[in-house]
Amino acid sequence: MDSLDLSLPAPELTVVLCDVESVSGSETALADLVESALSDVPHLSVDRDGDTVVARTSLARAERVVVAGHIDTVLLGDNLPCRVEDGRIHGCGTTDMKSGVAVALRLAAHLPAPNRDVTYVFYDHEEVEAEKNGLGRVARDHADWLAGDFAVLMEPTNARVEGGCQGTLRADVVLRGHRSHSARSWMGDNAVHAAGEVLRRLAAYEAEQVEIDGLVYREGLNAVGISGGVAGNVIPDECVVSVNYRFAPSRSEDEAATVVRDVLDGFDVRVVDSAPGALPGLSHPAAAAFVEMVGREPLPKFGWTDVARFSALGVPAVNYGPGEPSVAHQREEYCDIAPILECEEKMTAWLS
Amino acid sequence: MDSLDLSLPAPELTVVLCDVESVSGSETALADLVESALSDVPHLSVDRDGDTVVARTSLARAERVVVAGHIDTVLLGDNLPCRVEDGRIHGCGTTDMKSGVAVALRLAAHLPAPNRDVTYVFYDHEEVEAEKNGLGRVARDHADWLAGDFAVLMEPTNARVEGGCQGTLRADVVLRGHRSHSARSWMGDNAVHAAGEVLRRLAAYEAEQVEIDGLVYREGLNAVGISGGVAGNVIPDECVVSVNYRFAPSRSEDEAATVVRDVLDGFDVRVVDSAPGALPGLSHPAAAAFVEMVGREPLPKFGWTDVARFSALGVPAVNYGPGEPSVAHQREEYCDIAPILECEEKMTAWLS
Repeated sequence: MDSLDLSLPAPELTVVLCDVESVSGSETALADLVESALSDVPHLSVDRDGDTVVARTSLARAERVVVAGHIDTVLLGDNLPCRVEDGRIHGCGTTDMKSGVAVALRLAAHLPAPNRDVTYVFYDHEEVEAEKNGLGRVARDHADWLAGDFAVLMEPTNARVEGGCQGTLRADVVLRGHRSHSARSWMGDNAVHAAGEVLRRLAAYEAEQVEIDGLVYREGLNAVGISGGVAGNVIPDECVVSVNYRFAPSRSEDEAATVVRDVLDGFDVRVVDSAPGALPGLSHPAAAAFVEMVGREPLPKFGWTDVARFSALGVPAVNYGPGEPSVAHQREEYCDIAPILECEEKMTAWLS
Repeated sequence: MDSLDLSLPAPELTVVLCDVESVSGSETALADLVESALSDVPHLSVDRDGDTVVARTSLARAERVVVAGHIDTVLLGDNLPCRVEDGRIHGCGTTDMKSGVAVALRLAAHLPAPNRDVTYVFYDHEEVEAEKNGLGRVARDHADWLAGDFAVLMEPTNARVEGGCQGTLRADVVLRGHRSHSARSWMGDNAVHAAGEVLRRLAAYEAEQVEIDGLVYREGLNAVGISGGVAGNVIPDECVVSVNYRFAPSRSEDEAATVVRDVLDGFDVRVVDSAPGALPGLSHPAAAAFVEMVGREPLPKFGWTDVARFSALGVPAVNYGPGEPSVAHQREEYCDIAPILECEEKMTAWLS
């Protein structure tokens, strides 16, 4: 294909975008098409870093909003080219998230004078290790490209606003004992038995529900793994309980670590990694207008998404896109046409 | 070497036996030497099965006792040929258990008219998987060769009588739940958390101490392993706690399984394998005489040993040998000369 035709309706454009395969690491062809098409749009200035393309209006509006989507997909499931049937587009990338990218490209091309300045971000490497993430790379190397008052990440949400996202922290709780032959167990000190109290506290812990901007973030503190044992005839001298804490975006990573340490007071708690959440920012005027325009009750986002990268830059962000999240990464991936049209209409109204 | 010289004192014979390498699976050369040497002894009749050699007196005594030892060793630790220094023999097999074998060979050769008929058993494959064990093979194929009123297994015990042995049972306790994304943990059911109560009961369980023939067998019920977990962001749907129960030889395997099931009532307990213990049989006249002659307080044997194979054939058995058990299977393996001489002297007195 030589060029993208941004005059195509968003559903047709979704099909075109999906049929240009762009598994993570192979986004260059699609990024070239996006860059070329946007460079032809007179009201946009375009930047590129790797396979991330950033286009923006410069109308000196009082507010700037960011509309972002990743252009890579998970591995193909033998489900391309796309098949359209009964108002539904089937194929890899339809829901996650080229339907959202299609809407963003349409807005970029067809809104020469939006009521807020808009920065459109099309980025690479979202579906792989965090360190490769194109949005993260741009945040490190060109943070100014992502500046704004509010961001919309067009991940699949069934055309509802899902605000912010919760943070996540992983910690290992390490129990130590002494080995002995299990025929003389009283000579040892059983580290696996010691894990019982850790599990009891985790099971008894009542996770908080934290309300922010009218959204209730429901936290969770769980063992996600446990391992211990040397051999069938040895009293184990070590047991490790892996814990995952999902915390409301009002808490910092340090505060989250303190919660875990308090619950497991007296145990050897080692934080392995953590990522902060993202505040929904729904009290911001641009966000409030957006939510009102979408016209559905906004929901909190529980899972971690790239909105947290915007939040880390001081830009409140929400998830909002036409896709059906439950079919993402599935061989049966699809996206209905109606929410694609609805998203484009709502976003257009918001920016007009 | 062409032949074993059974006129050598037991310590020298120990050195000779150790210097004929016989790692499990490579016992043939040593078994040939043992068979040949015993065949030259006029008061013995000799049988062989694989690399196990059985020799016996047939004096129509009122009692028959079995004296047994394995002729294989664990892998060499670069510690042969033997080195003798300051009354101590260093080298692979010295303690476990060619010093005991040397004593048994000396008794076989030099006691033409023992006060009890004696069956001497020198067997292969003790240091490897149970199904290869030569004593087990003979018990299956020639149980009559092992008939007797009492057995002495000359495993290392520091020249003390260690009576019988405890049984052992392994069971898996399987906890089931439901997976969910850990960001929505309330949609799942955490199988690792459920293991907390299993560990609590195991930690709280007070193992029994069972007295048999004046020996106190101290039981133990322990988690020896635990595993669960799918990924750092998934609520685990399965957790398995591996449990090991060491039980007094007065309990059957079925009774042992009932104890474990009672302690873990309400949980899915799956018995993986078990092996019965061995009663010490110290009330038997031959055993009582043996203990009296050894002249030290007998001890219970906690770990499982091949005495259980005799017990399964209805032959009470004890462990008694010159070796130091704590250096078995170590590169630093050694055996002192004094207990070798003491064992030979005591056994000779008992059988004279």
